[in-house]
Amino acid sequence: MPRIALGVAYDGSAWQGWQTQPHGLTVQDQLEAALGAFSGTGTPVPTLCAGRTDTGVHAEMQVVHLDTPLQRRAESWVRGVNAFLPASIAVQWAQPVSDDFHARFSAGSRTYVYLLWRGRVRPALWAGRAGWCFQPLDIDAMRRAAASLLGEHDFSSFRSSQCQARHPVRTLHRFDIHESGPFVVFTLRANAFLHHMVRNLVGALLYIGQGREPVAWLEQLLQARDRRLAAPTFMPDGLYLAHVEYPEAFGLPLPAAWEMQLAPFLPR
Amino acid sequence: MPRIALGVAYDGSAWQGWQTQPHGLTVQDQLEAALGAFSGTGTPVPTLCAGRTDTGVHAEMQVVHLDTPLQRRAESWVRGVNAFLPASIAVQWAQPVSDDFHARFSAGSRTYVYLLWRGRVRPALWAGRAGWCFQPLDIDAMRRAAASLLGEHDFSSFRSSQCQARHPVRTLHRFDIHESGPFVVFTLRANAFLHHMVRNLVGALLYIGQGREPVAWLEQLLQARDRRLAAPTFMPDGLYLAHVEYPEAFGLPLPAAWEMQLAPFLPR
Repeated sequence: MPRIALGVAYDGSAWQGWQTQPHGLTVQDQLEAALGAFSGTGTPVPTLCAGRTDTGVHAEMQVVHLDTPLQRRAESWVRGVNAFLPASIAVQWAQPVSDDFHARFSAGSRTYVYLLWRGRVRPALWAGRAGWCFQPLDIDAMRRAAASLLGEHDFSSFRSSQCQARHPVRTLHRFDIHESGPFVVFTLRANAFLHHMVRNLVGALLYIGQGREPVAWLEQLLQARDRRLAAPTFMPDGLYLAHVEYPEAFGLPLPAAWEMQLAPFLPR
Repeated sequence: MPRIALGVAYDGSAWQGWQTQPHGLTVQDQLEAALGAFSGTGTPVPTLCAGRTDTGVHAEMQVVHLDTPLQRRAESWVRGVNAFLPASIAVQWAQPVSDDFHARFSAGSRTYVYLLWRGRVRPALWAGRAGWCFQPLDIDAMRRAAASLLGEHDFSSFRSSQCQARHPVRTLHRFDIHESGPFVVFTLRANAFLHHMVRNLVGALLYIGQGREPVAWLEQLLQARDRRLAAPTFMPDGLYLAHVEYPEAFGLPLPAAWEMQLAPFLPR
């Protein structure tokens, strides 16, 4: 059967994560039901995704694939499936792909963005969509600590006990910290991420930014390979799966940075 | 009784507007109940606001005042009342004011911001929090049309039939259009606004931006003073009461532009 890839954006604050659950209140359940409705069968259409996001985590561009006998123009997939999706979930593009494309296994890397509000008071406008830290932060110290993690490492210290990955080694390509007005924006790109890895890294960096731990602590944590030593897992509210990178040969659309839904928060 | 002013931020997408209703699902109802809980009486504390926002409209900085015998430090008002408010509403500051301060009548001007997403597909991440227009827009034409409305005018053509204002004359001090990545950001400042005035103005500007009407149409509408000629009221999703300006003598806090919750969308 022909294979199709979809780019999907969602505000995760109303959903119990990506992965399907018996109660149906997940992004995957909503998408698969909408695909079934669009297909005219009413039967949910199974999908596979690039990165399963947790409860309350958002996506600017989740990527999924599905196999379907249905022949429709790409634009028709986008508009048709969106007609059956709630306002907080929308297919952004559709692209026929070859049989050897796999949303998860073909991905070369994933990029996550974390938005942090650092006002004195909790940011009602950004409730559910930005983390919050009211203490002053030493951004430069956080940047130096973040830089010390780049490259291939055993990230066991930043891995949830529920993590199902076969091994804890990941390659962190990028860990940038950018200030956008009162927001601090973390951008992380890695070949793949362990469960809770971004939220654990951001939580540890905040300890350093607040002066509770020195810059060198992050690397010490890394080397200890012991989750019990690190900071608590930081809140999901500000976490966005921003982008998934695939080999060019698959021909997936590549939106320019300025076209992205998070563009106002990123460096111009 | 001593008078206190509060700055209040809210994500209006879950609320049926500012103004109190029997069902209690409004921002005012939530705030007045939280004030009652903080006061220890359990009785809602009446408030008066600078600008009553409609269902689905947000505020970065609504201003209200209330009279209370309760003596507390400003910081205690902020943290204490917020403890009784839902995540989507938060007091940002509290300030004792003189008896002649009135949130509505002392206000010299109001500033509204409208966020418009102009992608091809509806912006799931911004559902309820940005308007959406998928047609290409001639921003320069929109800017020229907006400039033609500055000053004191009879805005009857942009006034809802439900408007309760005594007269339709308002002074528009500012009507800027700024591009922030894929967003178009409208900033309007006036002494006061008529009901639906911002949404009607944005709706009319989009007709011009889409080439459905010429630049001169906006001024023709204004002079016609007839609501039936204008464009439909545009969706509330992207509308934010950003700021209310008072005479300096009242001593209200003035957050810097870069501290504002909408800062990433505004010119840097």
